[in-house]
Amino acid sequence: MGLGVVGGGVAKVLREKKEAIAEQAGCPLILRKALVRDLSKPRSTQIAADILVTDAYEILTEPEVDIVVEVIGGENPAYEYIKQAVKNRKFVITANKEVMAKHGTELLALAEEHGVDIFYEASVGGGIPLISPLNHDLVASSVSTIYAIINGTTNYILSRMSAEGITFSLALQRAQELGYAEPDPAKDIEGVDAAYKLAILATIAFHSTVRPEDVYHEGITRLTERDFRYAKELGYAIKLLAIAKDIDNSLEVRVHPVFIPEDILLAKIEGVYNAVQLEGDLVGKVLFYGEGAGASPTSSAIVADIINAAHKINSGVEARHKARIFQTKKIKPMAEIETRYYFRMSIVDSPGVLAQIAKILGDNSISIASVIQKGTDDNTQTAEIVIMTHPAQEKAIQRALVEMEGQPVIRQISNFVRVEE
Amino acid sequence: MGLGVVGGGVAKVLREKKEAIAEQAGCPLILRKALVRDLSKPRSTQIAADILVTDAYEILTEPEVDIVVEVIGGENPAYEYIKQAVKNRKFVITANKEVMAKHGTELLALAEEHGVDIFYEASVGGGIPLISPLNHDLVASSVSTIYAIINGTTNYILSRMSAEGITFSLALQRAQELGYAEPDPAKDIEGVDAAYKLAILATIAFHSTVRPEDVYHEGITRLTERDFRYAKELGYAIKLLAIAKDIDNSLEVRVHPVFIPEDILLAKIEGVYNAVQLEGDLVGKVLFYGEGAGASPTSSAIVADIINAAHKINSGVEARHKARIFQTKKIKPMAEIETRYYFRMSIVDSPGVLAQIAKILGDNSISIASVIQKGTDDNTQTAEIVIMTHPAQEKAIQRALVEMEGQPVIRQISNFVRVEE
Repeated sequence: MGLGVVGGGVAKVLREKKEAIAEQAGCPLILRKALVRDLSKPRSTQIAADILVTDAYEILTEPEVDIVVEVIGGENPAYEYIKQAVKNRKFVITANKEVMAKHGTELLALAEEHGVDIFYEASVGGGIPLISPLNHDLVASSVSTIYAIINGTTNYILSRMSAEGITFSLALQRAQELGYAEPDPAKDIEGVDAAYKLAILATIAFHSTVRPEDVYHEGITRLTERDFRYAKELGYAIKLLAIAKDIDNSLEVRVHPVFIPEDILLAKIEGVYNAVQLEGDLVGKVLFYGEGAGASPTSSAIVADIINAAHKINSGVEARHKARIFQTKKIKPMAEIETRYYFRMSIVDSPGVLAQIAKILGDNSISIASVIQKGTDDNTQTAEIVIMTHPAQEKAIQRALVEMEGQPVIRQISNFVRVEE
Repeated sequence: MGLGVVGGGVAKVLREKKEAIAEQAGCPLILRKALVRDLSKPRSTQIAADILVTDAYEILTEPEVDIVVEVIGGENPAYEYIKQAVKNRKFVITANKEVMAKHGTELLALAEEHGVDIFYEASVGGGIPLISPLNHDLVASSVSTIYAIINGTTNYILSRMSAEGITFSLALQRAQELGYAEPDPAKDIEGVDAAYKLAILATIAFHSTVRPEDVYHEGITRLTERDFRYAKELGYAIKLLAIAKDIDNSLEVRVHPVFIPEDILLAKIEGVYNAVQLEGDLVGKVLFYGEGAGASPTSSAIVADIINAAHKINSGVEARHKARIFQTKKIKPMAEIETRYYFRMSIVDSPGVLAQIAKILGDNSISIASVIQKGTDDNTQTAEIVIMTHPAQEKAIQRALVEMEGQPVIRQISNFVRVEE
């Protein structure tokens, strides 16, 4: 269902690797029908015209169809189609992060009830094996932390801003020119896409349903060249991280820009690549890296899922263990998270201003780790200062921000970014 | 079988995570017997004395035992025990790279014949999911290349040599003091351990049996501080890489030190960590990273395998697809590989010497990419030169080495290292 970039890619792989796939699956796989919006549209992929349909129910109710591949994207009508497919006892392979993030637990339960399964490896991290290792290979460990770069668009933009010192808008424009950002980039640059993917990973890792609305998200639009310059000076890289932590059965789930030490592996993930780092009590740190999007890597995950589904249909039962949701953990409100912070602000360059700022922070139990003050701008008589704090609670930081904004000597709070070590 | 560091770790996890494991496996898992060499030895793990046995056949013939965990290590008697276990229709979980590298294809076929299975995720890369993703999640791609850092001991030694400019012997001594190298480190530093692991990975990735004797291996003992200094000057890191390539159905499988560009991810893998990078036609580059050894990460892989085996026993059949060996690819002789090379040599500092060297290389169709010549040592009237070549065949290089060694103006070929880009 869906014969766009990804759907066309899957059809191509099924055709070109027919024999190898049959060998792996234990039976030939035949593309019976393909859902398209417009029958008359010219197509680059060599697909027989007589298998194209415009009515989803021709697929969903077709008895000859055992496996439905949903690559339409977006919540509706994909959600309805997946539900119908499952109810009609068809296995579903989907790359749909929005549907799986919003309705995954319900759909997986429905599939179990109907004796079928939903595979969704392609919904997070393109071709990188993530969901399957979490479900099967890391089940002995209790996962405590996920740090993930799971949006290629924003990682590309941040990489260019960092390497070339260009503005966010220019980097976005470059990404759009190369097809790495959509004409309407909102979902990527605001962190919504990463939040969906994090909800999916956290649900599996923590055996407890995490919904997209549980995930705090903040985009990368406020970052400027100056922030990158200070980050480098302080030994950090800036990344949009999807972060999930299980601290005493209370979950932190959040997507926002962070300062991370420049010498760790996550800081070296450049361009459109994705990387997911997990920490578990037994396994320690593991990291998975690869191309997070694109027709070809996504097809790799989808076709592997198809092969696994075919194998499962042939053998008739579920024999491989899958991590289960057997807990309900509470989501920690953003106000209660604790981390280090970076502030950048413009202040009036006169004696005692830093003392005023330090007092506001101190009154809110925020302790300062380091301060950088740069030369005064003679025209405006303002100076720029950068403050790195020790770990502090988000709500204390927010309160301090409000108090600082009320001070006439503080011209502007230019930015604040959380720091993860 | 085996209650050493890893076996003790597995027993501890089975005890401490009893409920979580039962939840995941769908049934409780009971440790029935444990094979030890000496009953009287004091043990840190809390294991009931009455389950300890010194005769392996008390386990191998025990009808109550469904799953045998082999963590004795070494080829014999482990190989015999695994074979017996399988013949007695017991599932086997093993961390034994030597047995699986030497006898894997035979043992897996024997297991299939007897309706059981052998899981060996822990045999390569400790807790990092590698075998399972290759078997299940990357099956749609044809793997073309594997670049792997799969020996923590040597990576630790090379990391210290690179960071501190110390000698190989001193770095080895440090590794031994920290327990990262064994008192007899031969198998690690000579590349034998990495060759076993590469044989295992290549067999799965290429669907064709690769035996340890097919893998060319060369250790790290010839590397000196000077090589690291030149590598840095030229923009490279030095790593012991396990390399496998499928070029037109002919396999290159080799373990040796290599120069790799310092800005790629593999160059940043430090200390005892492991990383395996695969390249496939669909998936592109993927990399898996984590702790490659130690009781805890290895237990993570073993216990996950136990859970998967328990699940499989409960459901009674094999339902998840596994990559198959369905091809026989030929192994390319080392003489035929083609790569770039780094040479370091001492020459008599007189006019025309470089021309003589260039002529020998040229006569062997080896073209020079760059040359560094360092200041003369006045006492000995020798200079050191470093040559980087363009891609050349190994046999041409070996021939040129012999010819150069015959030249009186060349005092010594100090080292030569292959280069991968």
